[in-house]
Amino acid sequence: MIFPATGQEPPAERLSLSVRQAGEHVPAVAWLPASSSPPSAVVLVGHGAGMDKDAPFVTRISRHLAGNLGCAAVAIDAPHHGERTPDEERGLSAQQRRERMGLAAWRERNRRATAQAVADWQAAIDAVHALDAVPNVPVGYFGISMGTRFGVPLVAAEPRITAAVFGLFGHPAGDKGAVFARAATQVTVPVLFLLQWDDELFPRQDGLALFDLLGSRSKTLHANSGGHLQVPHAEISQAAEFLREHLASG
Amino acid sequence: MIFPATGQEPPAERLSLSVRQAGEHVPAVAWLPASSSPPSAVVLVGHGAGMDKDAPFVTRISRHLAGNLGCAAVAIDAPHHGERTPDEERGLSAQQRRERMGLAAWRERNRRATAQAVADWQAAIDAVHALDAVPNVPVGYFGISMGTRFGVPLVAAEPRITAAVFGLFGHPAGDKGAVFARAATQVTVPVLFLLQWDDELFPRQDGLALFDLLGSRSKTLHANSGGHLQVPHAEISQAAEFLREHLASG
Repeated sequence: MIFPATGQEPPAERLSLSVRQAGEHVPAVAWLPASSSPPSAVVLVGHGAGMDKDAPFVTRISRHLAGNLGCAAVAIDAPHHGERTPDEERGLSAQQRRERMGLAAWRERNRRATAQAVADWQAAIDAVHALDAVPNVPVGYFGISMGTRFGVPLVAAEPRITAAVFGLFGHPAGDKGAVFARAATQVTVPVLFLLQWDDELFPRQDGLALFDLLGSRSKTLHANSGGHLQVPHAEISQAAEFLREHLASG
Repeated sequence: MIFPATGQEPPAERLSLSVRQAGEHVPAVAWLPASSSPPSAVVLVGHGAGMDKDAPFVTRISRHLAGNLGCAAVAIDAPHHGERTPDEERGLSAQQRRERMGLAAWRERNRRATAQAVADWQAAIDAVHALDAVPNVPVGYFGISMGTRFGVPLVAAEPRITAAVFGLFGHPAGDKGAVFARAATQVTVPVLFLLQWDDELFPRQDGLALFDLLGSRSKTLHANSGGHLQVPHAEISQAAEFLREHLASG
């Protein structure tokens, strides 16, 4: 099964998902298989920094999961993203927003949003399981880059998630005391970790160190030559298949 | 397609392959698809230290390539292995032979055999292409551990090989002047590299450094938790599929 780069549109239905967390509305969508059989699993699709729940990459993998693999997919706007973008940043591209704040401040704002992002995702799991069309099936997580920043603490904290895909993110080997590092050691579910060998945004050694930190007994790293945005399509396809398989067997 | 761990026997035929190199007989076997259609590619299967051309691992992947994937597979006894085992080491297990010599001397003997192993493989390619049943199809290489020690210089030197699987081997990042390191930079074909994260025989950093040295524009590393002999069966299956795909498209 090849992850569709362009053109193909697997049969899947998009619906708005009503999610509230601590009194706040969390913009969320669910993708369901178009067939009448219920999904076999739910996959949470965490977007990267500057993207949102309807970014083309997020939509493509969600449609693939729902239309080709029989899973429900859920995407939310992370804090400060999509419908939650601060007024003064509306209309700017992701690159403009990053340049406006500076990379360090941009990352620090995302880092500070971790607890909220984790709580938002937990509310989204409640919401998708409350749908009549979605029985109480296993939950997986797919999120690379900022999707891993939020995903690692989420998977560490949330026992309903039983398999995860991370990657394009890192943590220095020397900083084992950080909250994020401690969360990584508390991840115990099977993990597939995607790393770009020539990643210009996250040093290779930090990516390898994060993979090393993960507490999972079963973990696999796939590294490919190329930069941050050059993950081969075949890897995304394999990652979706990894989740489908592990959620089916779990 | 799952690499068969035990039991299943894909339909393939084993035949002795007559290989001579510099006046010496090189023990060799070929595995051919049992069907009447000619193989789409040839895969050279290099065994690990202490193994030989008929070791169970070599036979399993050869039968899989021939019986399930439509490729011819070729295996030879590397120098000092199989039928070429020195008299004083006959009847000993691989572990006993290694302990008898000491690990450093064992590795040094294999290292010194590199030029001969490369020439033996080149003669084996000539021999398999001389078979009526095997047209002039693309050639790939599969060899991990000692199979990578010999395979890297072979693939660097042999333009008929157009895709390779390496792994479970390493080279220190600081030793870029070594003959082996220079050969690694001269490998330009697509490579899949298998690494065991907790390999007790080759330090992780040396494996990562070897992957980094490879000159291929298209290269992928798969790392899994576990020791030298704990490569997941699914990785072997994917490696065979990697070769079939790249050899078909090349």
